[in-house]
Amino acid sequence: MDHPSVICPGDHAVWRADKMGKTTLFQSSRLLVGLNAFEPGQFHALHVHAGMDKLYQVIEGEGLLVLEGREVPMKAGELAVAPDGVPHGIRNASDHRLLVLAILAPAP
Amino acid sequence: MDHPSVICPGDHAVWRADKMGKTTLFQSSRLLVGLNAFEPGQFHALHVHAGMDKLYQVIEGEGLLVLEGREVPMKAGELAVAPDGVPHGIRNASDHRLLVLAILAPAP
Repeated sequence: MDHPSVICPGDHAVWRADKMGKTTLFQSSRLLVGLNAFEPGQFHALHVHAGMDKLYQVIEGEGLLVLEGREVPMKAGELAVAPDGVPHGIRNASDHRLLVLAILAPAP
Repeated sequence: MDHPSVICPGDHAVWRADKMGKTTLFQSSRLLVGLNAFEPGQFHALHVHAGMDKLYQVIEGEGLLVLEGREVPMKAGELAVAPDGVPHGIRNASDHRLLVLAILAPAP
C-alpha cells in the first residue's frame, strides 16, 4: 500500500479458521504496523520481543492482554504497551471477533 | 504511567484554548506514543521528521491529514502513515473536538 494513505484497519483484516490471522499495514526498519485477527477462542501465546517495544490497540471486540501470571481485559479503543523484555500475549475469550492493531518499534 | 497497563487514550487528552494540546502516553528511545488534541480550528502545520516514521490514528472526531498540496479527510478509527521524509500535518476543520494518536519510531 502506498503511504501516506488513509487506512481503515478493519478493511484489511485476515480471519483464519485455524489460528490468528496476521496482516501488515506498514513496514520499515523502524516501524511495523500490523493487524492480529482473532476468532473466538484464538490466542497469541505469551512471548517477548528483544530490543523492541510493542503497542497494542483493540480495534474491534474485546480481549485479554496476557501477562505473566495474569490476564487484563481490553476493549475497543484501549491501548497497552509491552516494553522491551516484558512478556505479553492476547487471547480472545469472547464470543465475537477480536481485531487488534499491533505496532512494533523497531520492526522485527 | 507504568507499563504494561491498559490505557483509554481519551482519559489522557489535554485540551488547550490557545493551541493543540500534547500528551505522552509512552516514550522510549524506540517509540513515542502521544496524543494530539485539537479544538475546532486548531492545527499542526506541515512538518517533516528526519529518520522517523509516524503513524496517526484518529481516536475521536474527524480531521484533515495535511500533505503537500492536498488535504485528506480522516475520521475516528482511521490510520495514516507518514514515512520518513514525507511532510505531513493535521487540521481540525470541523465543529467538534479532534483527538489523534501520534506514534513516532524512533522517538525524537
